[in-house]
Amino acid sequence: MKIDDLINNSGQWLKGCGDHSDIVMSSRIRLARNLAKKPFPNKAKKKELTEILKVIQDTVNTIKLFKDFLFIRMSELDSVDKQLLVERHLMSHDHATHSDGKAVLISKEEVVSVMVNEEDHLRLQFMNSGLDLDRTWEIANSFDDALSELLEFAYSVSWGYLTACPTNTGTAMRGSVMLHLPALVMTKQINKVLAAVAKLSFASRGFYGEGTQAIGNFYQISNQVSLGHSEIEVIQNINGLIGQIIEQEEQARQALVIQNKPMLEDKIFRSYGVLRNAHIISSQETVELLSMVRLGADLKIIKDVDRHAINQLLIMIQPAHLQKIEGKKLSASERDIKRACVIREKLGGK
Amino acid sequence: MKIDDLINNSGQWLKGCGDHSDIVMSSRIRLARNLAKKPFPNKAKKKELTEILKVIQDTVNTIKLFKDFLFIRMSELDSVDKQLLVERHLMSHDHATHSDGKAVLISKEEVVSVMVNEEDHLRLQFMNSGLDLDRTWEIANSFDDALSELLEFAYSVSWGYLTACPTNTGTAMRGSVMLHLPALVMTKQINKVLAAVAKLSFASRGFYGEGTQAIGNFYQISNQVSLGHSEIEVIQNINGLIGQIIEQEEQARQALVIQNKPMLEDKIFRSYGVLRNAHIISSQETVELLSMVRLGADLKIIKDVDRHAINQLLIMIQPAHLQKIEGKKLSASERDIKRACVIREKLGGK
Repeated sequence: MKIDDLINNSGQWLKGCGDHSDIVMSSRIRLARNLAKKPFPNKAKKKELTEILKVIQDTVNTIKLFKDFLFIRMSELDSVDKQLLVERHLMSHDHATHSDGKAVLISKEEVVSVMVNEEDHLRLQFMNSGLDLDRTWEIANSFDDALSELLEFAYSVSWGYLTACPTNTGTAMRGSVMLHLPALVMTKQINKVLAAVAKLSFASRGFYGEGTQAIGNFYQISNQVSLGHSEIEVIQNINGLIGQIIEQEEQARQALVIQNKPMLEDKIFRSYGVLRNAHIISSQETVELLSMVRLGADLKIIKDVDRHAINQLLIMIQPAHLQKIEGKKLSASERDIKRACVIREKLGGK
Repeated sequence: MKIDDLINNSGQWLKGCGDHSDIVMSSRIRLARNLAKKPFPNKAKKKELTEILKVIQDTVNTIKLFKDFLFIRMSELDSVDKQLLVERHLMSHDHATHSDGKAVLISKEEVVSVMVNEEDHLRLQFMNSGLDLDRTWEIANSFDDALSELLEFAYSVSWGYLTACPTNTGTAMRGSVMLHLPALVMTKQINKVLAAVAKLSFASRGFYGEGTQAIGNFYQISNQVSLGHSEIEVIQNINGLIGQIIEQEEQARQALVIQNKPMLEDKIFRSYGVLRNAHIISSQETVELLSMVRLGADLKIIKDVDRHAINQLLIMIQPAHLQKIEGKKLSASERDIKRACVIREKLGGK
């Protein structure tokens, strides 16, 4: 498997299947781990980072679970390839900025990815389609167990796993769920929901990760607190909260269908029509229109589009993807044309 | 032929054929005539109007050219039927407001229509597709000749035909041409063109007639002066002016294609996409989008729509037409839904 092969496939988390996949796009578990007695990456010298990377590489090479993983050193990648991995949610923006001693490991179908020497020595990410934190946690746990057998992690009996940033200390686990909440937005209930989320000490972010605004009605909800509760407790808390949000979104969708079907059909089909016909389109407009088309598919108002295609498009329409597809650098206005072209092909437009 | 049959067919002037039919939608000749020694309609009493109507009806019944014409008394029509005739450009708003002694005659394919007792005793209208004022004038002339043989018209050797409004005195002829000028609008040259039109003493109006604003880039250009020139001279003048406008629109279209094709394709296909997918749409938005689709068809950017369908839609999306198609009264918001439905059917949308 090579980095270029990624483009032609989609991550398992985009398949649009699994529990509540009409509202829950994907579930994600992230673990932070650091090697004992080694400086955190931001304090380590270049040589130390290289040594840490070697230890980790040698270790994963002996672990069966990591068989067939793509192992990529940041220093081997050009800026477009780096951006491609960021766009696929396989690594962070920060991980792309300095290359020294950094690498990323990616499993088939992108369920598992590991950043080496980002903020922590190891940042393990596990992603699945639909609402599936429990099974995702099981996978995460098995990888953590396998690594723990061979690596000594920085751990304190009183504090739990030690991490570069104290907010991650404890379980060093973050569970998050990507939600699509168009009806709560359209019925103007979203701010109430997000206020409740914040009050319960959960964080909400946009589709394109930390620091991004919510566009296209996508909201990623994750736990803030990782200290003082077991992983299972944290996941139960998230599941409880997400269950309530799902119920509210379902009710809002029902209300829209019953009270304002023509308006809903109009919005959905216009969005579909524009996506299938535009020849120049920005990513912001695309995501907003895709959101409406996804709602249309979920409500069976549009019958010939599936969620998988829409989810894939959310990834494919980003700059690095468009440039990889085209096979060359593209200016912003060239990308707007290429984006429209990719969308029309995918959705069978003109 | 009945009034309800009109809906299922389109006027010949909407066929989208004839000279320069990419830019010139239709050509129209209007003649005003009054019976000698009878008061103009605005001065005539109800009884006089009825007598005038009877004279005209008896006369046309003996003229072969009027065979198969639909003869409709205003008093026989409900408000929707009246509005239907206005929407089809077969009679004026004014003609619909008071019914006394008023009638309208309509030929097959709506090439000829005659208002009896509107502002003048006879208002004859002749419409054809494309730029075709010469042939349209020949048709008008033959009808005028046939009527003149049997009716004495109010005529002065020094003033020509006498009419209720002095601006029509003389030839009492108005020639007009409906133009579609999207490229002149998009390249912001239209105001310069309209200023020149006004300076040359021609009038410009919107698609929906006198007193309407230009929407959808449609402009109806007609002569203001009907005194002091023969009909042939007036038509030559109009043809000269229209020829120049056509040339400018053609140049502007070429410039757009060469300089900004992606923007043009985007605008055109988005319009097409919205029309084929909207479920609620106003008439204003419809006309604007149809204008872009018409341009797309004319430039062969859209290949599967013909001008005839677009021209027909410009008529069909109006309130009375929608209500006749539906077979019942519709509120404004019900019409917006029905309009979208009619458009989707016609353009093969979702």
